Amino acid sequence: MALISPSRRLRRTHFSEGVEAAGVKSYTVYNHMLLATVFESVEADYHHLKNHVQVWDVSVERQVELRGPDAARLMQMLTPRDLRSMLPGRCFYVPIVDETGGMLNDPVAVKLAEDRWWISIADSDLLFWVKGIANGYRLDVLVDEPDVSPLAVQGPKAEELMARVFGESVREVRFFRFGLFEFQGRDLVIARSGYSKQGGYEIYVPSGDLAMPIWNALFAAGEDLNVRAGCPNAIERIEGGLLSYGNDMTDDNTPHECGLGRFCDTQTAIGCIGRDALLRVAKEGPVQQVQAIAIDGDAVPPCDRVWPLFGGGRRVGQITSAIWSPDFSTNVAIGMVRMTHWDSGTKLECETPDGMRVATVQPGFWA
Amino acid sequence: MALISPSRRLRRTHFSEGVEAAGVKSYTVYNHMLLATVFESVEADYHHLKNHVQVWDVSVERQVELRGPDAARLMQMLTPRDLRSMLPGRCFYVPIVDETGGMLNDPVAVKLAEDRWWISIADSDLLFWVKGIANGYRLDVLVDEPDVSPLAVQGPKAEELMARVFGESVREVRFFRFGLFEFQGRDLVIARSGYSKQGGYEIYVPSGDLAMPIWNALFAAGEDLNVRAGCPNAIERIEGGLLSYGNDMTDDNTPHECGLGRFCDTQTAIGCIGRDALLRVAKEGPVQQVQAIAIDGDAVPPCDRVWPLFGGGRRVGQITSAIWSPDFSTNVAIGMVRMTHWDSGTKLECETPDGMRVATVQPGFWA
Repeated sequence: MALISPSRRLRRTHFSEGVEAAGVKSYTVYNHMLLATVFESVEADYHHLKNHVQVWDVSVERQVELRGPDAARLMQMLTPRDLRSMLPGRCFYVPIVDETGGMLNDPVAVKLAEDRWWISIADSDLLFWVKGIANGYRLDVLVDEPDVSPLAVQGPKAEELMARVFGESVREVRFFRFGLFEFQGRDLVIARSGYSKQGGYEIYVPSGDLAMPIWNALFAAGEDLNVRAGCPNAIERIEGGLLSYGNDMTDDNTPHECGLGRFCDTQTAIGCIGRDALLRVAKEGPVQQVQAIAIDGDAVPPCDRVWPLFGGGRRVGQITSAIWSPDFSTNVAIGMVRMTHWDSGTKLECETPDGMRVATVQPGFWA
Repeated sequence: MALISPSRRLRRTHFSEGVEAAGVKSYTVYNHMLLATVFESVEADYHHLKNHVQVWDVSVERQVELRGPDAARLMQMLTPRDLRSMLPGRCFYVPIVDETGGMLNDPVAVKLAEDRWWISIADSDLLFWVKGIANGYRLDVLVDEPDVSPLAVQGPKAEELMARVFGESVREVRFFRFGLFEFQGRDLVIARSGYSKQGGYEIYVPSGDLAMPIWNALFAAGEDLNVRAGCPNAIERIEGGLLSYGNDMTDDNTPHECGLGRFCDTQTAIGCIGRDALLRVAKEGPVQQVQAIAIDGDAVPPCDRVWPLFGGGRRVGQITSAIWSPDFSTNVAIGMVRMTHWDSGTKLECETPDGMRVATVQPGFWA
């Protein structure tokens, strides 16, 4: 493992002070910003996340804000998901595709009002695509990256902790909805969402001056809940089948290949730039698709590149994320597999850095 | 200093094997890819670069390729530099701006042919902007990221080493020109360019299978030249005033603020999307501009965030890159300073993590 070199270009966040004080050990870089990956250890962080409550600095989920009369039209141009039924107060997971149907990002769209949206992005400069489209089509809309920093509260005790800080009514926010809640006299967007399967919330902190006060309020209120600083956990997210843009999919992949066909309404998503390119795959289905895959043997080494998958001596896919799962006592993995070999139970061979291993296509993700 | 967590999303390069074998100690992430920052130490690497020759894996300088009848028109839409006089075989440093004149990238454009260009990019997903513009304006052009990986050979002995591997005629390539040279029967674009002031070349390696053979050929031929693996060096680049996108400029800045007005022909760059927004600043000049700044005292700590600059008690700018220079026995720095305080010799106060220090605006960069 190598060190990471500090520079302004790898942006700090409004919560970095808290993350450092909590003893962060490793980072990744995501949207040109630091994202913690380990506090105690990946395994210790994992057990804690599943049993208690964690506060995550996910400022890296930068927002692309759309404002103006053409905001809704632009939002629909970006995605094959039909947004006509989406009301303000809702969050939609939206595949974003280019004119070839290739994935550019897999963000959550937050509809603040008919003419005001946030796109809470995965790791790519989606702002550049959206600005280019808005400019090229001469749309009447402002597009920028506001100073909004999501703070996630995740884990089985998340609701209890949030209720203590933001009031009992935060319990009534339903999954992928948001409400406005007050903190020190300011309104905050708080959604029931987050990049784990343990339940929880994301607080869209609208300016730097509120960041550490909210962070500190959560830690002060949660001492008896064993609250800790945390971060998206590699084991938990693979067990739960939460895909990672750049890891499990790139702009080479259609949403259908990524198993995101259920978030596409390709027939009715009129206006989507990639719609024509996706009509055929939407009808006939993809020839390769993301699958849950178990890899035999002891804990695999870090998965820092694609690991080829072979079936009958031919290359039939690749592993893109893999790690040992203590709870399921196997190596859990995410991979892309061709349709000839994607049936549940199919045994494949996986070329890992320490040799060939048996890999088995699973009926679904673990959690 | 924290560790960096490996994942496929932080892409390895075709030279990673060589970089690791050479004992890389630290990385940064640049265009979603690993870029070495330290081998022996920043200072040892610096002295070596200035005296010998280094081979740099700069695959992170990804290419955006434009191909087709509208390629030249699209290229001109992206930049306020007038490209009409540019011939095939030339490289131009081109500020890229959005419709507000804000910098989106500061790449080198490589004109392969009238209808085929590479844009060798700094750290932002420029591909997304270019694809959005091409789509929105319905241009007849293909835009993608080819599998091209630049390998830089830098330092005073670079020409000698390159001549040994690619033949004597490589000596005739002039600054910011390129030629085609053969290696194992394949044609390579080799330009006299690179992100140092020590002179050298960049080899545009067009596919993975050639990467390690070229790397190994350079090391085999350069043993008596004391060739080593290296990387862009923080000290050398600040001494030389080589700006870094994301560090010394962002999309908040115009090219003129970045001191890049000499690369802009705002009057004549008809077709540039940001032209209208830049006409006034091109005529009247910017109100703040990048400056070389010396910071008094011992070696400053790592500059991982902006350090405010004060003059007469008011904030008048910020430092964005700073490091101790052994050769100039001072802290060399790059900062943005308001016009009221940018005259050479002006004494400012700089708020560093370990206290206020005197900072002096320099007449120019050091090297």
